[in-house]
Amino acid sequence: MTLEISQAPSLSSFRFEQSARDGNARAGVLTTPHGIIHTPIFMPVGTQCTANAMTTGELKSLGTEILLGNTYHLHLRPGDELIRELGGLHRFMNWQEPILTDSGGFQVFSLAKLLRREERVVVFRSHHDGARVELTPEISIGIQQNLGSTIMMCFDECPALPATRSSLEESLALTTRWARRCKEARTTEQALFGIVQGGTEVDLRLNHLESITEIGFDGYALGGLSVGESKEEMYPVLHAVTPRMPEDRPRYLMGVGDPLDLLEAMEAGIDMFDCVMPTRNARNGSIFTTRGKLSIKQARFREDPRPLDETCSCETCTHYSRAYLRHLFQSGEILGHRLHTLHNLHFLLEMTRQARSAILSGTYLAFKQGFLERYHSGLDD
Amino acid sequence: MTLEISQAPSLSSFRFEQSARDGNARAGVLTTPHGIIHTPIFMPVGTQCTANAMTTGELKSLGTEILLGNTYHLHLRPGDELIRELGGLHRFMNWQEPILTDSGGFQVFSLAKLLRREERVVVFRSHHDGARVELTPEISIGIQQNLGSTIMMCFDECPALPATRSSLEESLALTTRWARRCKEARTTEQALFGIVQGGTEVDLRLNHLESITEIGFDGYALGGLSVGESKEEMYPVLHAVTPRMPEDRPRYLMGVGDPLDLLEAMEAGIDMFDCVMPTRNARNGSIFTTRGKLSIKQARFREDPRPLDETCSCETCTHYSRAYLRHLFQSGEILGHRLHTLHNLHFLLEMTRQARSAILSGTYLAFKQGFLERYHSGLDD
Repeated sequence: MTLEISQAPSLSSFRFEQSARDGNARAGVLTTPHGIIHTPIFMPVGTQCTANAMTTGELKSLGTEILLGNTYHLHLRPGDELIRELGGLHRFMNWQEPILTDSGGFQVFSLAKLLRREERVVVFRSHHDGARVELTPEISIGIQQNLGSTIMMCFDECPALPATRSSLEESLALTTRWARRCKEARTTEQALFGIVQGGTEVDLRLNHLESITEIGFDGYALGGLSVGESKEEMYPVLHAVTPRMPEDRPRYLMGVGDPLDLLEAMEAGIDMFDCVMPTRNARNGSIFTTRGKLSIKQARFREDPRPLDETCSCETCTHYSRAYLRHLFQSGEILGHRLHTLHNLHFLLEMTRQARSAILSGTYLAFKQGFLERYHSGLDD
Repeated sequence: MTLEISQAPSLSSFRFEQSARDGNARAGVLTTPHGIIHTPIFMPVGTQCTANAMTTGELKSLGTEILLGNTYHLHLRPGDELIRELGGLHRFMNWQEPILTDSGGFQVFSLAKLLRREERVVVFRSHHDGARVELTPEISIGIQQNLGSTIMMCFDECPALPATRSSLEESLALTTRWARRCKEARTTEQALFGIVQGGTEVDLRLNHLESITEIGFDGYALGGLSVGESKEEMYPVLHAVTPRMPEDRPRYLMGVGDPLDLLEAMEAGIDMFDCVMPTRNARNGSIFTTRGKLSIKQARFREDPRPLDETCSCETCTHYSRAYLRHLFQSGEILGHRLHTLHNLHFLLEMTRQARSAILSGTYLAFKQGFLERYHSGLDD
């Protein structure tokens, strides 16, 4: 049962329409002031105002419709005030299409050295230079407004797991209060998404979803998944919670980029994904293919004239052999990193495009089944 | 006085025509089986089958007409036999246009640990893994034939300077004998250039030029310049030797990429250049501009919304600010390296294109004067 709380759109320029539904899976169109996004969609992560080795022109030609920027990183370097003075993040990084910024919460609780976490304020040391920095819901929204992103995220706490039920409940209540403060702090026309936490406890997730939905946001995200738990723990949460998220708002699963997880989450009704995995894997020579992962460093590819994936239409696969790419990797050449990043991003973007087509034609489960069979069949040699 | 030794073209598909002359400066067209090269021309260096961060598509869109590949590096990794099996260097690295390969000589005498240098053979240890490797003129040509480059270079000795006159003469005689062996070893239709050495001794250079020209090659190079000597030592050699190199063959100044050196060498009649400087400088944030070099790491560029060079039409300068590029450099982002490499290569390619236009219109000296005045005027702030 979907929560049927009526929500008048808070922003006239931000609109989500469901185009088709196939089981719980859905295809939609998200209209924003910076452009239209076709869901389900994968969002490449541009941590330092850049999606690693890629230019924004390349990202666009890959079919990228929205990028993710990191509030924590950009606040520390080069500074959100500087970016605002130079015309905002879109102009600074030469990307006129939609940008989603996270709230900084995840990095504060994972990357930085946390000094104090209180109701009012979180204090931590920068992982760059050890400088003492404060974040509050209001400061996070202020930074995201300086950046001028299309979609902002609420500042939340991502509780470390495993956690006792009572400490989890205490954390969820804090995240709810922070979400209210975030909404009150917004003074611009940027969209704002709420975040639902709760670890792998379905009842806590559903309670938290209700609390966050009551406040009312332009979209809703599931945070704190794919943080170390098994697929067997994660998938039931996806299937229990996602279909009950508001239907008239986009649903975003944060930090998930494994192809198998995407398949499962789209089936449950998730619309948006982000993950550093395609770019981070590329750096390590770990390649997505329709027949499972491939590690380009392996000696078996030394003389292999075939492309990474024989069914792939990306620039890397249509121009370069595994032998050449292995040589670039062994030589530590930047071009290798680039070509692998390009392929991995293409893979996830193309995968969500194909899933969307399948949903539109009512064949999502057959698509998923076919994908899984190929994926598990192994490389063809 | 030019050496007027008549040389029937040894290769029907390889032809150099001088289009215009302006003083000693000249504009020409070099026809090869892989395409046409308009001289003067700068050749980006693709050490490991890649010009650093660039794809071959990008190199082409920059107006690159010929790339340089390193025999020494490719022989050691991934191996020239492997490249031959996979269809040659052009196919391996996805570049169908001309490629010039050096002979490996320079790297053997600078990068590797030299074990023995004899008339017959040079023995050294690989700088990768210490493996014992042998090179001879015949092996060098064999490697370059495996690679299938458009233009091969003779295996030569680049003598360490300063050197006594007698040791220099001994080295030049060896390089001459090696040049003859290289020519005899060639069994393909690939062009082969001879290399003139002689340090900064003009009379030795002219004698060596005569010896090398007598053997007869498809083009002639000056090696062993810009290896530590001052411009005051190098420029007189350029002006004394270049005009006496055969007029009906391309003239190549090896390893020179400083804009001021290019200006001087084109005036003396040089047609071809290569250097790792634009790519290596890019990695260090050192940028060529029409108003001299710029170090992007300087704090003065922190909030600078202007492009690297306000007169530049490259993708970097038309899309990104100094503030953004400084941020990428400070963050160690690959995209910064890419955008700087792209700009630096564009700078040298555009510079030789403009020089060519000036030569064709008989205004080279005015072009040079204007370039120098701007270059020395400093950044506009």
